[in-house]
Amino acid sequence: MIPGPFLLYLGHSDDDVGIKTSRGLAAFRRDDCLGEWRHDDCPLTLGLPRMDAAAARAAGARTLVLGIANAGGRLGEALVQDALQAIAQGMNVAAGLHQRLRDDPRLVSAAAAAGVELFDVRDPRADIPVGNGKRRAGNRLLTVGTDCSVGKMYATLALRDALQRRGVVADFRATGQTGILIAGDGVPLDAVVADFISGAIETLAPARGDDGWDLIEGQGSLFHPSFAGVSTGLLHGAQPAALVLCHDPSRTHMRGLPHYDLPDLAECLAANIQVARLTSPYVRAVGVALNTVKLDEDAARRLCAATGDALGLPCTDPYRFGSDPIADWLLQCYAPSTPATTASA
Amino acid sequence: MIPGPFLLYLGHSDDDVGIKTSRGLAAFRRDDCLGEWRHDDCPLTLGLPRMDAAAARAAGARTLVLGIANAGGRLGEALVQDALQAIAQGMNVAAGLHQRLRDDPRLVSAAAAAGVELFDVRDPRADIPVGNGKRRAGNRLLTVGTDCSVGKMYATLALRDALQRRGVVADFRATGQTGILIAGDGVPLDAVVADFISGAIETLAPARGDDGWDLIEGQGSLFHPSFAGVSTGLLHGAQPAALVLCHDPSRTHMRGLPHYDLPDLAECLAANIQVARLTSPYVRAVGVALNTVKLDEDAARRLCAATGDALGLPCTDPYRFGSDPIADWLLQCYAPSTPATTASA
Repeated sequence: MIPGPFLLYLGHSDDDVGIKTSRGLAAFRRDDCLGEWRHDDCPLTLGLPRMDAAAARAAGARTLVLGIANAGGRLGEALVQDALQAIAQGMNVAAGLHQRLRDDPRLVSAAAAAGVELFDVRDPRADIPVGNGKRRAGNRLLTVGTDCSVGKMYATLALRDALQRRGVVADFRATGQTGILIAGDGVPLDAVVADFISGAIETLAPARGDDGWDLIEGQGSLFHPSFAGVSTGLLHGAQPAALVLCHDPSRTHMRGLPHYDLPDLAECLAANIQVARLTSPYVRAVGVALNTVKLDEDAARRLCAATGDALGLPCTDPYRFGSDPIADWLLQCYAPSTPATTASA
Repeated sequence: MIPGPFLLYLGHSDDDVGIKTSRGLAAFRRDDCLGEWRHDDCPLTLGLPRMDAAAARAAGARTLVLGIANAGGRLGEALVQDALQAIAQGMNVAAGLHQRLRDDPRLVSAAAAAGVELFDVRDPRADIPVGNGKRRAGNRLLTVGTDCSVGKMYATLALRDALQRRGVVADFRATGQTGILIAGDGVPLDAVVADFISGAIETLAPARGDDGWDLIEGQGSLFHPSFAGVSTGLLHGAQPAALVLCHDPSRTHMRGLPHYDLPDLAECLAANIQVARLTSPYVRAVGVALNTVKLDEDAARRLCAATGDALGLPCTDPYRFGSDPIADWLLQCYAPSTPATTASA
């Protein structure tokens, strides 16, 4: 486990979505976060006290979390320099980038000299099997999206909380670096070798014999040309009984790709159902989660109502309005006496 | 480059499909293959002289090719022992398994002592970018399949030969270990990290400004629960103008998965077209390739005719009857004066 409390890194970022790992920790493990480290050219904030490595160390921080993401997940020179400062202060460093901290000799030798640790959260375990697609027992729900970074992790965690409040056993299954940092466990799916994508998810959410739910964090989108392979393998490995579609209505094009429009929500849901049916013939959608952070509350509520009506599903902004409508509908669809995935095939 | 001539390994295999790498080399680089090494419990043959490592070395073989595949691509103890024998004879060893030769200390030290090399063909290069989906110039064709190992590589190579005989520039783009061993270059797609599947193919088949064709070897199947993520990323990265559907009519279930039926051909083609349209809106199917090795010639010809009629496409067994019908139809669809992928978007 990665020792807290954490100093969350924003660095020089001006990309609201790029800091999603830091933001996720601030949202779901706020008690473990002492402060945020941002440079003068960073216009973003998580609402935490601003401090650099020295101040954070003095306040008791034990790990700098490099919670920023860029396409390709590479370490930049600025990141390395700031990480070296934190190490010099006696702090561990954690990151979820594709490029590993341990592959930078400067970080490795500095960490060894300071007696601190480097945590590469995006390291999949070595013994992941090839997926087998065998039908397995248990209730599983997967969040899917119109695009990357539209709130799938938030929706999954909010739904977990709503189910737990209802006395239902619900486990969050993390598939990305932020989720893994929040849960303390999971599979960094986008770093798994391509042949093992579905097998990794079969391992992450194995058969379960109770009435509880595995809530699996989705990744990417079937409509994102860079990452749809990951989303496809995730759908097949998850064997979901239920899907929740996640969407950011403020997005004007696919993330990072100005030349790609977002899919229509109904088309996106239909495509996900079609792909999921290969391993889970009775899969159904149970809700829509919108990220309405850029709308005022009235507009957000109207959009949720209209979207829900159009798709015939409960629709909410889980982070803003909670997940009750989706949790209630899920439990109505899958009452404990009729387990979702053990229906006759 | 891997030094020939080769000794092809069949080992203890009794799985006709499992020896596909050895078989592919025997078919497409026969002049470079001196013999086959099979144990007494191996009922298979490539029609090459049977010899062990010592005999092959005496005959001039320079590299043992461990051309057998198993799900997960692991090195077994029998493979390691036989590889050690070949090394002791002074031969290099090449393999395309997920588990690397260089990760077995016994092989590494034996190779160093003998002054020979270990070739891990399934090592992707380190600098693969994330895919960007940007429309790029050039004619590209991708083979897709109802299942794994149904003849996509054979169909691609046979089509290359048919196009080249017509004076058309046609380049084979290898995506699997067998194809890479045949072509001497390519991307071992199933070993690429999941986030980079489509980017790897964009790099393998970049924009081209002539009237020639990149013929890209397909992998897996959208309907194989273990590997559909790879197939999806491959479709998106390839931006194919044209698809050829490959199928083995003798297959009774999805490879390795007795609990999964093969998809209907029309359904499979429609799903591939749908996924491919994300990055190549005008993609079309131009042919069907059947692997009829288990049928007599009359039955094979009747099946090709019936399948072609049912799907409205030229259909052939490329390895048995050649690829002329598909090559002719492709060139009729995409005459040099109307480049396939530069049509107005």
